[in-house]
Amino acid sequence: MIYLDNAATTFPKPEEVYQAMDKANRELSINAGRGSYRLAREASKLISDTKQQLRDIVYADISASVVFAPSITIALNQVIQGLELNRGDVVYVSPYEHNAVARTIHLVEKQKGIVIKFLPLNEQTLEVDLDRMRYEFAKDKPRAVICIHVSNVTGYILPVKEIFEAAKEYEAITVLDTAQSLGLIPVDSKSIDADIISFAGHKTLYGPFGIGGFINVTGISLNECIVGGTGSDSLNLDMPAGSEAKYESASKNIVAIAGLNAALKKIDQSMLLKKEQELTDYLIKGLEKLDGIKLYLPTSSEKHVGIVSFNLEGYSAEDLGTILDEDFDIAVRTGYHCAPWIHEYLKDSSSLGTVRIGLGQFNNISDIDNLINALEDL
Amino acid sequence: MIYLDNAATTFPKPEEVYQAMDKANRELSINAGRGSYRLAREASKLISDTKQQLRDIVYADISASVVFAPSITIALNQVIQGLELNRGDVVYVSPYEHNAVARTIHLVEKQKGIVIKFLPLNEQTLEVDLDRMRYEFAKDKPRAVICIHVSNVTGYILPVKEIFEAAKEYEAITVLDTAQSLGLIPVDSKSIDADIISFAGHKTLYGPFGIGGFINVTGISLNECIVGGTGSDSLNLDMPAGSEAKYESASKNIVAIAGLNAALKKIDQSMLLKKEQELTDYLIKGLEKLDGIKLYLPTSSEKHVGIVSFNLEGYSAEDLGTILDEDFDIAVRTGYHCAPWIHEYLKDSSSLGTVRIGLGQFNNISDIDNLINALEDL
Repeated sequence: MIYLDNAATTFPKPEEVYQAMDKANRELSINAGRGSYRLAREASKLISDTKQQLRDIVYADISASVVFAPSITIALNQVIQGLELNRGDVVYVSPYEHNAVARTIHLVEKQKGIVIKFLPLNEQTLEVDLDRMRYEFAKDKPRAVICIHVSNVTGYILPVKEIFEAAKEYEAITVLDTAQSLGLIPVDSKSIDADIISFAGHKTLYGPFGIGGFINVTGISLNECIVGGTGSDSLNLDMPAGSEAKYESASKNIVAIAGLNAALKKIDQSMLLKKEQELTDYLIKGLEKLDGIKLYLPTSSEKHVGIVSFNLEGYSAEDLGTILDEDFDIAVRTGYHCAPWIHEYLKDSSSLGTVRIGLGQFNNISDIDNLINALEDL
Repeated sequence: MIYLDNAATTFPKPEEVYQAMDKANRELSINAGRGSYRLAREASKLISDTKQQLRDIVYADISASVVFAPSITIALNQVIQGLELNRGDVVYVSPYEHNAVARTIHLVEKQKGIVIKFLPLNEQTLEVDLDRMRYEFAKDKPRAVICIHVSNVTGYILPVKEIFEAAKEYEAITVLDTAQSLGLIPVDSKSIDADIISFAGHKTLYGPFGIGGFINVTGISLNECIVGGTGSDSLNLDMPAGSEAKYESASKNIVAIAGLNAALKKIDQSMLLKKEQELTDYLIKGLEKLDGIKLYLPTSSEKHVGIVSFNLEGYSAEDLGTILDEDFDIAVRTGYHCAPWIHEYLKDSSSLGTVRIGLGQFNNISDIDNLINALEDL
């Protein structure tokens, strides 16, 4: 199988990730932080080391809390549902948001009566129109701005530095979703004004399922969303104080954390990005030659990563995906990709979404040749 | 190391669990339900097979929905926060509840103004006083009854059949927490009147961290608690309809599910229970001989599993745990065990909780001899 669905989850992972997980499973999969014996302390050390790796990758200070959750979806629920928001507060999101943000902020809208507004896009380029955004911010002041770093539909890298800088003029809380960026493109908390950086272990970080979370760079206080046992302060019916423990209930998944730790050790962001950009350029050149191709691309190659959406005249996205799978053993993703809003701009409803290629570090030129040959053969 | 902390998490797991997880990691760790290619279909089949194993183990019909969550804590948050409860509704819980229930129902109390009441215990035996319970139910009618099946502090098997039968006279919603029971003692949904059975993969089922959930036996409707992408119905800002999809956002942890699948295939409940009861009897006989021992035991061996709490005169629970670890390489758990309420009945505050032995299927007589010898040597 030629796997071109790395935007759903990167696959395979580096060999070191598999080995670290099997080893942790066999030797360390006890309940960290719940016991005071040697293995429990070893597990706790692995957890704190992994948190430090995450601080390092975003250049955060040691004071930044790193909260582990079983997935970025759960982390974003904790963050977005946990924000201190009141009726009428304006929360801006980009039209590129994934349902991990979109459905969650919609739930908060129903519960608290907040107002959701969109960062405006240029209708031609589908890039964020920063001038119009600043105008909108001045008109309806943001209480919070939540933004995906890289679109999981078109690979577009949003100008989050400029977006959050403008948001901070109104002291808005800023939340960044790095599911498709961390490990691949720079996320520098010293330069991007994000209060909270959420992350997924299993995508561009090349770690496993079962681990995600958020880095609370500036120590935003969040209301309780998910509660439970913490192995500490057990007689307290509220979650314990502490910028991490308060949000970390349930036994930690030490096996997944061991995998993420190995992945973080292995990652070489500049190499990954260079390789992915070369492959992406090659892919796009190949696709552009096809008759009846419709590509959904940002304006320049510096503005996107190796996620490329397209459609081919005469085919629905889903049908094309099925043909690629059944006749050519090529795995792509089709449909709306859990992104509810951007399709209005892409105008892809007649194809029921797009065909999406998600490149990863284990893809090569031959994978792309095979894809292009398949599409030419149709 | 002699591992006697199986109530925190069973360790080790059967070899088949490790092998299934490594294999899934290497061959199947793609995003099930998000793509339409062969591997994604294989992953989806593994998920549905595992759900069927869970229906089978509780003798539930095919119509019962099985919702996967990353942990039983998250599952219980979804269930308890999701219940349709209104101000003044009376919710009964046992005093044995773990913080996965206790902190969650406390959060709901703060948010919705419900009234929490306790199932009454006999002060001598610390067992549920069923007659007084029926009297309390008649006085303050239950809207819901949430109950742990086996205490993670004393191993007490609560009479959940009788409790839920009485609750159903008032049409209360009944929720069972089987973290310490499923796989070890019978949980028969045909005989226990539980609407919802929550489960943990990593304890008595001998599966891994990262997978838990709930079986919605009678199809109780729950409000949204955690939302996000589902790989389906992406343009809908509410969670999709469907008794499972509605509660299952985020990528599924196929590696953990593969481990649970292998664990469920391997489990032989009657053998596990027999072995654990024999070891428990042997442990208790050994402990009872020690000078200054205080045991927190249910009245008869049929009423508990292999979780035994004790204290030794002259030692705080924590100090004893540290000595057992450092001088004898024996891992036990000490403290309050994430159970906030039961310690008032155990009257163990002078020891700051208890020392807890959690036996598992990989313990043997020699482990217990070593523990008893260590305690005699003090």
